[in-house]
Amino acid sequence: MNDTGQYLHQMRATAPLVHNITNYVAMNIMANVLLAAGASPAMVHAREEVAEFAGLSQALSVNIGTLDAPWAEAMEMAAAVMAGAGRPWVLDPVGVGATRYRQEVCARLLHLRPSVIRGNASEVLALAGLGAKGRGADAADPVEAAEAAARDLARATGGVVAVSGAVDYITDGTAAYRVANGHDLMPRVTALGCSLNGVIAAFLVGQAALPATVAAMAYYGLAGEIAAQGARGPGGFQSAFLDALYTITPEDLSAGARITQA
Amino acid sequence: MNDTGQYLHQMRATAPLVHNITNYVAMNIMANVLLAAGASPAMVHAREEVAEFAGLSQALSVNIGTLDAPWAEAMEMAAAVMAGAGRPWVLDPVGVGATRYRQEVCARLLHLRPSVIRGNASEVLALAGLGAKGRGADAADPVEAAEAAARDLARATGGVVAVSGAVDYITDGTAAYRVANGHDLMPRVTALGCSLNGVIAAFLVGQAALPATVAAMAYYGLAGEIAAQGARGPGGFQSAFLDALYTITPEDLSAGARITQA
Amino acid sequence: MNDTGQYLHQMRATAPLVHNITNYVAMNIMANVLLAAGASPAMVHAREEVAEFAGLSQALSVNIGTLDAPWAEAMEMAAAVMAGAGRPWVLDPVGVGATRYRQEVCARLLHLRPSVIRGNASEVLALAGLGAKGRGADAADPVEAAEAAARDLARATGGVVAVSGAVDYITDGTAAYRVANGHDLMPRVTALGCSLNGVIAAFLVGQAALPATVAAMAYYGLAGEIAAQGARGPGGFQSAFLDALYTITPEDLSAGARITQA
Repeated sequence: MNDTGQYLHQMRATAPLVHNITNYVAMNIMANVLLAAGASPAMVHAREEVAEFAGLSQALSVNIGTLDAPWAEAMEMAAAVMAGAGRPWVLDPVGVGATRYRQEVCARLLHLRPSVIRGNASEVLALAGLGAKGRGADAADPVEAAEAAARDLARATGGVVAVSGAVDYITDGTAAYRVANGHDLMPRVTALGCSLNGVIAAFLVGQAALPATVAAMAYYGLAGEIAAQGARGPGGFQSAFLDALYTITPEDLSAGARITQA
Repeated sequence: MNDTGQYLHQMRATAPLVHNITNYVAMNIMANVLLAAGASPAMVHAREEVAEFAGLSQALSVNIGTLDAPWAEAMEMAAAVMAGAGRPWVLDPVGVGATRYRQEVCARLLHLRPSVIRGNASEVLALAGLGAKGRGADAADPVEAAEAAARDLARATGGVVAVSGAVDYITDGTAAYRVANGHDLMPRVTALGCSLNGVIAAFLVGQAALPATVAAMAYYGLAGEIAAQGARGPGGFQSAFLDALYTITPEDLSAGARITQA
Repeated sequence: MNDTGQYLHQMRATAPLVHNITNYVAMNIMANVLLAAGASPAMVHAREEVAEFAGLSQALSVNIGTLDAPWAEAMEMAAAVMAGAGRPWVLDPVGVGATRYRQEVCARLLHLRPSVIRGNASEVLALAGLGAKGRGADAADPVEAAEAAARDLARATGGVVAVSGAVDYITDGTAAYRVANGHDLMPRVTALGCSLNGVIAAFLVGQAALPATVAAMAYYGLAGEIAAQGARGPGGFQSAFLDALYTITPEDLSAGARITQA
């Protein structure tokens, strides 16, 4: 793929308006992550306005974490606008393996062909229709176990599928990359995975989906590595993580990205 | 206006119970801002209890950020209680220019005569019925462009209108002030504008609306200036901002406020 | 009671999945508190899935802070699953004295026999059917004023009742303990009380309710004491508090717990 830092440069130059329909836990940190990275977040979900607002947005992220029926309807309405307009949208299938309701909602959303699906291994396995051990937002399966499912899902949806873990795996069904950036403290801060999907959505604007997703994940993981230096625990880490998203330059990203072709 | 620090002293001595009906992004930081400043926040929205709870509260703040129909109804119910009892309430018309639904809800709320409306220039322009460029919570217009609209809106509602920006403009339709306090990192932390409206609501209790709003905005901006000293980015800034709200004394505020008559 | 640190050791070894139905203000910090402590939080409330998800969880916490009708129904559905399965659940009756609606919802929840009720003195007094001065989440009554009410409530529900304050009081209606750990900055950070209930729920898994609740409250208060060292205000304190929850060892807890029999 091209020079990684270039994707960050392009995202910041665009400062895209990213429409997020996300869970209550993630709302605040996701907006802060997007602002620190250089994008412009907005959270809008009312059925009275969600399609109109999607029409103003350059990208959409959808997250089913604290799902209920009116929100699921709003997600479909907004995703349909993006799919219809050829604009990117990202799906985070939080805990999809845990309940039948999540599986039904995700099945409807998959028909709207998300540009990128990012989840942990258990979520990707569950979404691909395979049994998975996930409980809540945790991954009980290793990334490797979900690589074939990720490729199948990418081919079925025509989008990119990204599996988060110690080493991430990102594929469009044909080509694939691994991203080794990241730190063990990241899953100790809630909703950092959710927030990553907003960053991916921002990187997708005007850029090819596979390398833009890879670049977004390397950027995010690199911020985690920088934040962990000197952090005593997840509190200080969270604060330093936002600072790192803000201060990392395109040159830093090109130098620090640990991306390999899979 | 009177000695600025006196307004902070009076607010802390009252420690008013501020009822907030706000958006999901702002909920946590808004409560933390109010606690750090010395007020007592509560978030209550259910139609079964919202009017009863408003009746117990000394001030109300209403924010349409993540609006939907039951919440809009709760906002009207609570604002009606405050208006009927002659107690202060503050409106934050987040992204009002973005969708017709927001315009309709705000039109209904304006009939309940908010004591203070605070927004960015695009929001104030949109609320005054003029075309504005706002998208989501961002301001695409400079403060100066909204000053005449702010005066018109203040005269129409009988309240105070405050336009946030690099230099804030606050007017009751006749007199007007500018507040130059603040820092560029403030818009990089989500919902700090929303949270300011809670602080304004707290300052309004038992104090004249125009100078109390000016004092609240100077206090808030001064906290931003102090927090920015030594902050590496928005994460450390947010933490230091809460600390500054907590540690600023009335004397600090009187010395640091940069207020001029407009 | 047994060695206090042992309860923390056991909780971390279990890393229980804690299902939380909580308020919008607490969502994020509560998840971060549970992750920092070593548990696995999930927030799920939709009536379409809440009972199914409760069935997967090892403990439940219910908090009525930003109550409304569909959420109240979800709380009852999830609590019924836990009660039926003999698994622990914890009730946080936020501001129950403030409105009739809160009293009605809490009356229904009490029938489902919470394993632990934790609130401030005003909330415990209100729940026990006595007049109390509470407004919102604040306590207007001292802990001592609620001790008899706590014992009565514990006997009536067959569970443990814990009263938070400068010195906490925890009773099962017969035995009782006081916990002196804690710091004045804790009530200056929103939702730390709410988040404590999730930690109590995590400690309850596989452990006796009374000593597990006492141990959880000592651990929490000790984290507050450590966090306050060097904190300039509630912003830095919050960050250091999460770090302390993460770094406190069972040995630290045994050494630092200030527990007495009442």
